[in-house]
Amino acid sequence: MAEVKLLGTWVSPYTYRVKWALKLKGIEFDYVEEDLCYKSDLLLQHNPIHKRVPVLIHGGKPICESGIILEYIEEIWPQNSLLPSDPYERAMARFWIKFAEDKGPIMWMVGQESLEMLKMIEEEALGDKKFFGGDKINMVDIVFGLAHWLGGEKLLEANKFSGLHTWLQNFKQVPVIKENLPELDDMFAYLRRQREMSPQSN
Amino acid sequence: MAEVKLLGTWVSPYTYRVKWALKLKGIEFDYVEEDLCYKSDLLLQHNPIHKRVPVLIHGGKPICESGIILEYIEEIWPQNSLLPSDPYERAMARFWIKFAEDKGPIMWMVGQESLEMLKMIEEEALGDKKFFGGDKINMVDIVFGLAHWLGGEKLLEANKFSGLHTWLQNFKQVPVIKENLPELDDMFAYLRRQREMSPQSN
Repeated sequence: MAEVKLLGTWVSPYTYRVKWALKLKGIEFDYVEEDLCYKSDLLLQHNPIHKRVPVLIHGGKPICESGIILEYIEEIWPQNSLLPSDPYERAMARFWIKFAEDKGPIMWMVGQESLEMLKMIEEEALGDKKFFGGDKINMVDIVFGLAHWLGGEKLLEANKFSGLHTWLQNFKQVPVIKENLPELDDMFAYLRRQREMSPQSN
Repeated sequence: MAEVKLLGTWVSPYTYRVKWALKLKGIEFDYVEEDLCYKSDLLLQHNPIHKRVPVLIHGGKPICESGIILEYIEEIWPQNSLLPSDPYERAMARFWIKFAEDKGPIMWMVGQESLEMLKMIEEEALGDKKFFGGDKINMVDIVFGLAHWLGGEKLLEANKFSGLHTWLQNFKQVPVIKENLPELDDMFAYLRRQREMSPQSN
């Protein structure tokens, strides 16, 4: 059995969080593509509670939930750290990660609430740094990477969030991110096909 | 200015999480009771994003969100640790904490979904241990302590969750918890009065 295995699907932003973190730390792993519609025995056996990807299997033991997996990766492989070393700065990073987790996709959807949240993030969390992590991306950038899936670029441009817009462009230029980022058009085409083939389609 | 200050309200389970953690670690702190209806300048200034308690102020710097505060306390004051030292066990503890956070009060309300979740927690997270933390309470116990506020004792007894029922009794016998646990009757009376006095009352 490979030491590190990742169960994921190529359209899931949560899978990419884990992929990015492992690659940023230079960890070799086997990637197992899971089918969105037919859950494998491997997945059901390793994530019996939530039955969803991503699941990291390390030395045969499963870790579930992307946020928990990121913290685990950071603890096991401390190189190229994804959280600040200062406990107060680390708490601030976790605060913004929780903010993004709690708000979820709402943050990137058109609407008054979304605009207020984005303003807050631009001013309070990003400020005039290149990345949320400072000069290099960290766990906050990885979590906010969800923006790519939700067409964040157009939203940010249309609403003149020039700070966040520049951040998203910088983020997508980081080699590990650039080389591991699904094309939106491919994803939409795939999800449309899945939907058409599904017996629950309507 | 005192080194450690906690802004909270006496009816909030999230305030108690922080209180318990500080007391379990033997940290001296000033407690500032906040009014649920009229938010103080101190609160608004220290938690401008969410404007809610609890807020821990350490050396003048605020930390918000009870889950983030617990991790911060654990890092700053490692004595009487509230998370396992093994990274895999720590990930498991965080998994159950996230489970409890995501489900929130639903877990303790009567209904089929609640019963399934409680069964899972009893079997998978508690097992035959005295506490979620093993022989001593840890962060998972602190987070599941929400059960007290939601009348969990009756729910657990009525539905024959004898493992969780025994756990809740054991938990409430731990001196720090026992000495820092609001009476349900007092809380209900207080919340009823607040509601009656509120201009939005209906």
